Amino acid sequence: MSLDGYIATKEDSLEFLSLVEKEGEDYGYHEFVQSVDAVMVGRKTYEKVISMGYDYPHSDKDVYILTRTAKPSVGNFKFFTDDLVQLVIDLKNKPGKNIYCDGGAEIANELMKNDLVDEYIISVIPILLGDGIKLFKNDRPEQRLELLKSKQYEKGLIQLHYQRADQ
Amino acid sequence: MSLDGYIATKEDSLEFLSLVEKEGEDYGYHEFVQSVDAVMVGRKTYEKVISMGYDYPHSDKDVYILTRTAKPSVGNFKFFTDDLVQLVIDLKNKPGKNIYCDGGAEIANELMKNDLVDEYIISVIPILLGDGIKLFKNDRPEQRLELLKSKQYEKGLIQLHYQRADQ
Repeated sequence: MSLDGYIATKEDSLEFLSLVEKEGEDYGYHEFVQSVDAVMVGRKTYEKVISMGYDYPHSDKDVYILTRTAKPSVGNFKFFTDDLVQLVIDLKNKPGKNIYCDGGAEIANELMKNDLVDEYIISVIPILLGDGIKLFKNDRPEQRLELLKSKQYEKGLIQLHYQRADQ
Repeated sequence: MSLDGYIATKEDSLEFLSLVEKEGEDYGYHEFVQSVDAVMVGRKTYEKVISMGYDYPHSDKDVYILTRTAKPSVGNFKFFTDDLVQLVIDLKNKPGKNIYCDGGAEIANELMKNDLVDEYIISVIPILLGDGIKLFKNDRPEQRLELLKSKQYEKGLIQLHYQRADQ
């Protein structure tokens, strides 16, 4: 997010992320993804990736594409129309690795409202966008956190890794 | 601010700051204040300090209490009813040390809208408040920043020090 808490401009632009682009630097993404075995992604984010001509990644994991329109599964990709909260509770009760909530703030905020987020890895980009789409929406419950670590990168990105404080 | 960008709850409570209280730890405040020779503070913050039975600090500096009601100065404390933006432009054009904007987000946001903030020292408290009074209001201009340094403290507070990128 930007220092003022936005993940995109009002026009949905992610242009500001180019401020921290650096050849060979993925800000820990590859390592993180290896710790994951289930991915949730909103239909809009999924379709944005496809429309840009890419395959959606994570084909080695259980991928849940959250949508209102039922469709048959494609490989490991399930189009999921049921209750998100129940899905996460079920996944957390099964043995496995981390569950990754990819892209967009709506799913994350729904999970935060239901106190289902155990860890946050927040990358703060060195810019004030001034306005835009907020990572944290209003009206969530209070949650105390523990700062596990922070890492400052050359391009001015700082990554903050928290877990819930009562774990 | 909290990780989700609030400086107080909706009820104006600062209770969450107690999470990072630690005997003998002032998170760099004393050192910072020594780099300052002019202070701006809103009338509400000023009166809150007085109402708690304290003297307002910074009596060794030029203090501008921003208010709509003119009053005679008391020592170095000026009750300032004129244009905030012009005050800051004048102060910046004079030789001197840093100008500190104390308490409350309204003054800071007015200065940000007019592109008059050169440095930000943001302390992120390890909590999601869920809702409250935002540090950064909507509808400011975009401003690129440079991360000068970051410091992680034992209680989980992380302090981020930025300056505008075009300096």
